Amino acid sequence: MSEQETTFELHPQLAQDSLYLTDWPLSQVRVVDDNQYPWFILVPRYNGISEIIDLSEQDQQQLWHESAFLSYWLQAEYRPNKLNVAALGNEVPQLHMHHIARFKDDVAWPAPVWSAAAPRQALSETEVLRLRDIFKQLSL
Amino acid sequence: MSEQETTFELHPQLAQDSLYLTDWPLSQVRVVDDNQYPWFILVPRYNGISEIIDLSEQDQQQLWHESAFLSYWLQAEYRPNKLNVAALGNEVPQLHMHHIARFKDDVAWPAPVWSAAAPRQALSETEVLRLRDIFKQLSL
Repeated sequence: MSEQETTFELHPQLAQDSLYLTDWPLSQVRVVDDNQYPWFILVPRYNGISEIIDLSEQDQQQLWHESAFLSYWLQAEYRPNKLNVAALGNEVPQLHMHHIARFKDDVAWPAPVWSAAAPRQALSETEVLRLRDIFKQLSL
Repeated sequence: MSEQETTFELHPQLAQDSLYLTDWPLSQVRVVDDNQYPWFILVPRYNGISEIIDLSEQDQQQLWHESAFLSYWLQAEYRPNKLNVAALGNEVPQLHMHHIARFKDDVAWPAPVWSAAAPRQALSETEVLRLRDIFKQLSL
């Protein structure tokens, strides 16, 4: 992972749809700018990687470690009815893993969030600052 | 994993939507009965488990190992444009991980398959037998 930092370029669509929270050893942690769901993404800091299995075995292990850590935090913080964990990437090929806390009364339930007709609603500045504070402490 | 075999009960919806292929150390491997996409699911053979992080750390490692193995095979067999790997479970709470080979000319592209309006089309018997033969060799 030594050469990640200098060369990593985030896909412009991810940069537009989500906000930076922190960097973990493998991934950049970002929150999707939509207050209708707690929706976080992990973006391994490599260019040209589309699939989980494009990562080295060691990096795959690290991704699952970071995914589990984020999932544990989502459960503790939001107490959702269900977690949705997914790597799709049909529209944005740069590997990114969605982690979404879902509730039986959220606007898309039980459909996946990607099919929701509801337009996104931006996070408040207060919420973004709160999350950045939390993730400053959540170091891996 | 010693007591899995005797007590495992597959959720009726998964039993209805998909066909048995084989058992790996942790998961039952099944194919979704839809010839529009190569669509496989891993179902860890436990009752009452909904989230990846409900599994022990050792079983989580095994799940990712099985997920990667299935993904490598999907890439080699179908040469898709993209893999979709996801644990959602909003409708069927029993933990199951989707692995879908996606193509730019498939009926749902670029939307996730779960939002596709196209009704499912059953697999041919020949195809099911072919897959069962393949997975007989793909032991983990």
